[in-house]
Amino acid sequence: MSNLIEEVNTNLKQAIPESHLNTDLEESMMYSLQAGGKRIRPVLLLLTLNMLNEDYHKGLQSALALEMIHTYSLIHDDLPAMDDDDYRRGKLTNHKVYGEWKAILAGDALLTKAFELVSNDDLIEDNVKVKVLQRLSKASGHIGMVGGQTLDMQSENQTVDLKTLESIHKAKTGALLTFAVMAAVDIAQVDQKTSHNLNEFSEHLGLMFQIKDDLLDVYGDEKKIGKAVGSDESNNKSTYVSLLGKEGAEDKLEYHKNQALECLNNISSQYQTSELIKIVDLFYNRDH
Amino acid sequence: MSNLIEEVNTNLKQAIPESHLNTDLEESMMYSLQAGGKRIRPVLLLLTLNMLNEDYHKGLQSALALEMIHTYSLIHDDLPAMDDDDYRRGKLTNHKVYGEWKAILAGDALLTKAFELVSNDDLIEDNVKVKVLQRLSKASGHIGMVGGQTLDMQSENQTVDLKTLESIHKAKTGALLTFAVMAAVDIAQVDQKTSHNLNEFSEHLGLMFQIKDDLLDVYGDEKKIGKAVGSDESNNKSTYVSLLGKEGAEDKLEYHKNQALECLNNISSQYQTSELIKIVDLFYNRDH
Repeated sequence: MSNLIEEVNTNLKQAIPESHLNTDLEESMMYSLQAGGKRIRPVLLLLTLNMLNEDYHKGLQSALALEMIHTYSLIHDDLPAMDDDDYRRGKLTNHKVYGEWKAILAGDALLTKAFELVSNDDLIEDNVKVKVLQRLSKASGHIGMVGGQTLDMQSENQTVDLKTLESIHKAKTGALLTFAVMAAVDIAQVDQKTSHNLNEFSEHLGLMFQIKDDLLDVYGDEKKIGKAVGSDESNNKSTYVSLLGKEGAEDKLEYHKNQALECLNNISSQYQTSELIKIVDLFYNRDH
Repeated sequence: MSNLIEEVNTNLKQAIPESHLNTDLEESMMYSLQAGGKRIRPVLLLLTLNMLNEDYHKGLQSALALEMIHTYSLIHDDLPAMDDDDYRRGKLTNHKVYGEWKAILAGDALLTKAFELVSNDDLIEDNVKVKVLQRLSKASGHIGMVGGQTLDMQSENQTVDLKTLESIHKAKTGALLTFAVMAAVDIAQVDQKTSHNLNEFSEHLGLMFQIKDDLLDVYGDEKKIGKAVGSDESNNKSTYVSLLGKEGAEDKLEYHKNQALECLNNISSQYQTSELIKIVDLFYNRDH
């Protein structure tokens, strides 16, 4: 897995050449792209391609695009008008370094660049490209990530029920994780049954991710997660922990872990699922 | 032309269905989409298709996408961290109605929706779709519109030379107008010479647009343009008027008008350019 992280990082470094306009917009885009993310989303896409016996290079541009969309969403989420965060992963947030207006534009440009990368990808056919672009725009737009973020912001300072909480996270974080897996399915063009199992798998993975996030926000180690614990509580946010308690949240994490593994188990033995099983373990055990 | 405006407006109304997430994000997106724009960009795209003897319906989704990108850029430009405008076209700006965080997200969602629309367009082939998406992402991103906006913001409170001013506007407003014309070229798949002439035509049109804007900002009628005149001067912005004076700016407008007409004149007589000539006149004579 570490060689894939390396490959993502190397390619991200070269993904945004300076323009003739001679501003520091690209520098600001690169600052956040290189602020030390775990690259979970792009690596998940590439590992799924590997598992499907497809050359992972065919997913590289989609993986970079995905990381750009994730990064732009963090830049905008951190803005004073949204979560107003000064630090992210232990580093100053984009608007603290480059100022608010440039942070807005850097986010806009990263989102746009994501679509540029996929539409210019020479390693996949046009019909596949179109499928990936349809999926990416849906996952990251008003019925996906941006919609989820809207519902999340709107739900601050009020208690939401478990169903709403799940809607928020399926859209806000789940949609991009599902994109990671299903873009690989589009590129490898696999059978319906495998596609169905991987789709289910990605949804359980997405919920695991969020439940773990909520647990870490209360019980995590500040040094490891790179931000203060307890931010959900001080922001009056409903979380799996606030709604279900520690044990209830841990049970739910366990449940989605088992369901995710079950989905992988249902996949034809021609596909080696060992690396995706490791991802499930990583989501289950991560401490940051 | 008015029936095309009508068609754009009717289709925009239906372009963003409510999502299951039950927020007012879509309402906020629609608010700005329907705040009374002149629809210059989408209409230019459709008129160019008509001129190229191609069914304009094939450009409808690209035209809507273009209007969404234009609209998102206005929402973000109006934010307190950018131009801090309370009114646009005589109506409250998005963030004054829906609040700052939702305006940021509405912009993000409109930008994303633009790519969703084109990638889901059933009337054009995948290879054409990909060309349009490549062009749209390039025109609206860090080397296009967003880059131009960055350079423009960065140049406030200082005098820039004419060359820099032209770079700003070629990227900030010119890129999307060129997209309008050239997306039609992609869709109609015309010969190299026609393509070249239309590309040049669109660049002159873009510069005309900006020079006229600068003139209207000083000499326009507040009631007609829907905002206070003199905003460039009070923002210490360099403009064609501040650099060249009224007559100098008018001469430049005249020059680009003649060049634009010359480009149309060079196009094969199998194409009826009369509607595009009207657009040139409209750009030249507009009072708002």
